Amino acid sequence: MELSSEIVRDRLERWPVARLATIGESGCPHQVPIVFAQVGESLWSPVDGKPKASGELARVRNIRARPDVGLLLDEYTDDWKRLWWIRIEGKARIVQPEVPQEDASFLAALEALRAKYPQYEEVPLVRTPPTMLAFDSLQIRSWYATSTSQPSR
Amino acid sequence: MELSSEIVRDRLERWPVARLATIGESGCPHQVPIVFAQVGESLWSPVDGKPKASGELARVRNIRARPDVGLLLDEYTDDWKRLWWIRIEGKARIVQPEVPQEDASFLAALEALRAKYPQYEEVPLVRTPPTMLAFDSLQIRSWYATSTSQPSR
Repeated sequence: MELSSEIVRDRLERWPVARLATIGESGCPHQVPIVFAQVGESLWSPVDGKPKASGELARVRNIRARPDVGLLLDEYTDDWKRLWWIRIEGKARIVQPEVPQEDASFLAALEALRAKYPQYEEVPLVRTPPTMLAFDSLQIRSWYATSTSQPSR
Repeated sequence: MELSSEIVRDRLERWPVARLATIGESGCPHQVPIVFAQVGESLWSPVDGKPKASGELARVRNIRARPDVGLLLDEYTDDWKRLWWIRIEGKARIVQPEVPQEDASFLAALEALRAKYPQYEEVPLVRTPPTMLAFDSLQIRSWYATSTSQPSR
């Protein structure tokens, strides 16, 4: 069964984590958990401020080569009657504005991420140069386990 | 930081859910949460007994065409100092023995799944014909957030 569009909308707004799948150089899928926020019809995810050992993140490298991505929102619980998932196919863009302060979408995404994740009061949200991933052209499918009721929000 | 091999081993044994990424016909990554159990150096996941609307599952179709898969084990928590993930690249096989009772690996996988998931006392573990996915040639990488301590088990 598909989740109702109302619940999908709610989950996209509130669910704190998605698993992002890109396709690696070798052709093998590559997954990483990400935080994200919705802005209009797109989802945005920061390329975060924590230092990385190996320079550019694999997800960024992969998207540069192939923008096709998958995003999965789901909840695992021992009560299998309450399982659900939302599976998204989309196109990813690497957004690195020269003057972030003048890029309205970028600013809206920063604001949405700060509103969704209080953790960003302590953790830097972007590193230099400020970079985010934007996911557009989203194709959304969903599923939930029971046929008699929607899972709880 | 990489998790210790001991913790990776423990997580592979106990962690109840992985996100499986395959590559779809369109070349887009396709993700689904799965249950799994470890048998020797491989991971096994049932193609479960619940009826499916559309015949063969996308994950099975995708693997038949391209066996390269990704598996992600991770835990999301609001305390970002406790985040971790284990990312696995592997080759998937569709295992559908003619006589499951005579296939030692298949039986071992069934047993491991039943031991790990008490839910299978009520939910059918395989459908007809009995089918599982086996993941071999696993390349394992891991990460955890803090540099001063391993995340809690």
